[in-house]
Amino acid sequence: MSNPELLPLLEPADTAAPCCPPLTERPFTAEEAETAARMFKALGDPVRLRLFSAVASHEGGEACVCDISDVGVSQPTVSHHLKKLKDAGLLTSERRGTWVYYRVEPSVLAAMGRLLTVAPAAV
Amino acid sequence: MSNPELLPLLEPADTAAPCCPPLTERPFTAEEAETAARMFKALGDPVRLRLFSAVASHEGGEACVCDISDVGVSQPTVSHHLKKLKDAGLLTSERRGTWVYYRVEPSVLAAMGRLLTVAPAAV
Repeated sequence: MSNPELLPLLEPADTAAPCCPPLTERPFTAEEAETAARMFKALGDPVRLRLFSAVASHEGGEACVCDISDVGVSQPTVSHHLKKLKDAGLLTSERRGTWVYYRVEPSVLAAMGRLLTVAPAAV
Repeated sequence: MSNPELLPLLEPADTAAPCCPPLTERPFTAEEAETAARMFKALGDPVRLRLFSAVASHEGGEACVCDISDVGVSQPTVSHHLKKLKDAGLLTSERRGTWVYYRVEPSVLAAMGRLLTVAPAAV
C-alpha cells in the first residue's frame, strides 16, 4: 500500500471522497446521491455519531477503542458501529499491539461539509 | 407566521437548529447526538437526497412537487420522503393554490455544515 517514492504527493482525501457538488448547486444524479447518502447514513445514528465525535475530538484525531467505549452500549455494539463508520470511509483503523486505533478521515469530513455549503443563489 | 413589524431581525435558522458544536470539538452528549443524527439520517437515503438537492438547487431555493418528482419513484413515495425531510426540519412547505411548494431551511443546512467543520487540532 505505501510506497513513499511513488506516492509522496497523493492526498488520500481526494480518492476517499470524489463525491459531490454542494447540494444547492444542481440536482444530484442517482450515482452522486448513492455515494453521498452512504456517508450521511453512517452519521444518522446517535451511537455512531457519539463514537465518531469521540474519535474526531480525541487528542491527535485518533483514539483507541479503550478511549471511546463510554457510550452506554455493549462492546460488540461499539465494534459494529465502528465498522459501519469504516465502511462508509469516515474512519480508518490500525492495529498497534493489543489495541485497534481509529482515526478520522479529514478529507471525507471536509467533502461532506462542502455538500452542505449554502450557495448564494439558494439563500 | 409573518409579521414584518415584530420580526424584522429574527433569523429562523437559529431557532430551527440549536444543535451542535463541530464533531471534532468534543465528544457529543447523548442529547446532541440524537438531534444531529436525526438530520443526518434524513439525508441518508438516495431518493431523499435527490429530492432535497432538487429543491435546494431550484430557482429561488423553492420548488413545487411538480418540479421535482423526476427521481424514478411513485408520487406517494415522493410525498413520503418530502414529509421525512420536513419532519427533520430540512424543508418547509407552503400550499399555494393547487400545489405545495417546498423550500430549503438554509440555517439548518448551515448548522449541519458547521458540525462537519474540521477543527485544526483534528487534522
